[in-house]
Amino acid sequence: MPSPRFALATKNPGKIREILEICADWPVEWILASNDPSWPQVEETGETYLENARLKAKAVAAHTGLPALADDSGIEVDALNRGPGPLSARFAGPEATDQENLLLLIKGIREIRAENRGARYRCVVVCAWPDGAEVSAEGICDGRLIAEPRGEGGFGYDPIFVPQGQDRTMAELTHEEKHATSHRGRAFRSIREAVLHAP
Amino acid sequence: MPSPRFALATKNPGKIREILEICADWPVEWILASNDPSWPQVEETGETYLENARLKAKAVAAHTGLPALADDSGIEVDALNRGPGPLSARFAGPEATDQENLLLLIKGIREIRAENRGARYRCVVVCAWPDGAEVSAEGICDGRLIAEPRGEGGFGYDPIFVPQGQDRTMAELTHEEKHATSHRGRAFRSIREAVLHAP
Repeated sequence: MPSPRFALATKNPGKIREILEICADWPVEWILASNDPSWPQVEETGETYLENARLKAKAVAAHTGLPALADDSGIEVDALNRGPGPLSARFAGPEATDQENLLLLIKGIREIRAENRGARYRCVVVCAWPDGAEVSAEGICDGRLIAEPRGEGGFGYDPIFVPQGQDRTMAELTHEEKHATSHRGRAFRSIREAVLHAP
Repeated sequence: MPSPRFALATKNPGKIREILEICADWPVEWILASNDPSWPQVEETGETYLENARLKAKAVAAHTGLPALADDSGIEVDALNRGPGPLSARFAGPEATDQENLLLLIKGIREIRAENRGARYRCVVVCAWPDGAEVSAEGICDGRLIAEPRGEGGFGYDPIFVPQGQDRTMAELTHEEKHATSHRGRAFRSIREAVLHAP
């Protein structure tokens, strides 16, 4: 029996790798376009993770005629009023690189006393079907920030984020360790049944 | 106009990420199955890279009805009579992990004088169409081995492989630097035109 096909509404190869690893036991075929100009370019204009993930998933479901999965995620720093949150990917500006965002947050963190560096990663994943049906799920990973980046795995703010119960940063964990604890791992495991057993 | 679809005949998320990054400017949609049990499980029984890549590409082209791309690659150490070559992924045994293979090669390298540690990475990529048509291309990255692993990027033998003209190991390069010089980057850039402009 052929497997069901799902479109993956992201063009970020690092994210694609993580999702494929997290969802390695999903009996599905994935359709994706790493940089196909015919795929919709979605502006992340929403104010929430859910709105942004939904915009991406719906656009790709409409384009491909397949159910489409998209996630939006960010880091929430207690001392920054839970920001940058949904703006995490554009913290240092609309075209900012991961490295620029990271350096800007390190600068901010150095002004904050060590005991006030609580933070969490949050990920919202949406599956949108071409007929308008939709499910979503959220995953949270609590932790704290450090001012000296460590580790080369992962991406985004991983080198300065230490998950609760860990001594190592998210960027120092193995892929398996990261997915077991990460916001993205939790979100995709949480949505699994609703996606695979949709009516 | 919808983009052409190609199946990617690999289940290795690290390889998938690299191929998507290398082929970011290919105007195509990718179909892949990170671990779909309905996709063919291909035993890499060939004696050459080309045979192994062909086995994988043909099996997935037959299963999906789409043109399918597969690569096979390995490292060739001068002092080991150009081995392990196509057996690189199974150097320490049929079920060996990347880490076990790496440790075994490091052990071998320590017996070899520094001036005799020349090696190269080789990658052969095949695109097979369901009607039996096929194209292939090869990419080589020359370099030398070191006995002390360095860096956390990449995979396989990257932490002990220093590409020609570099001071850093393949695992210390950024993704962009690695793809610009790597055997896989060269192979996929080489096959690009034949795949995208097939008759």
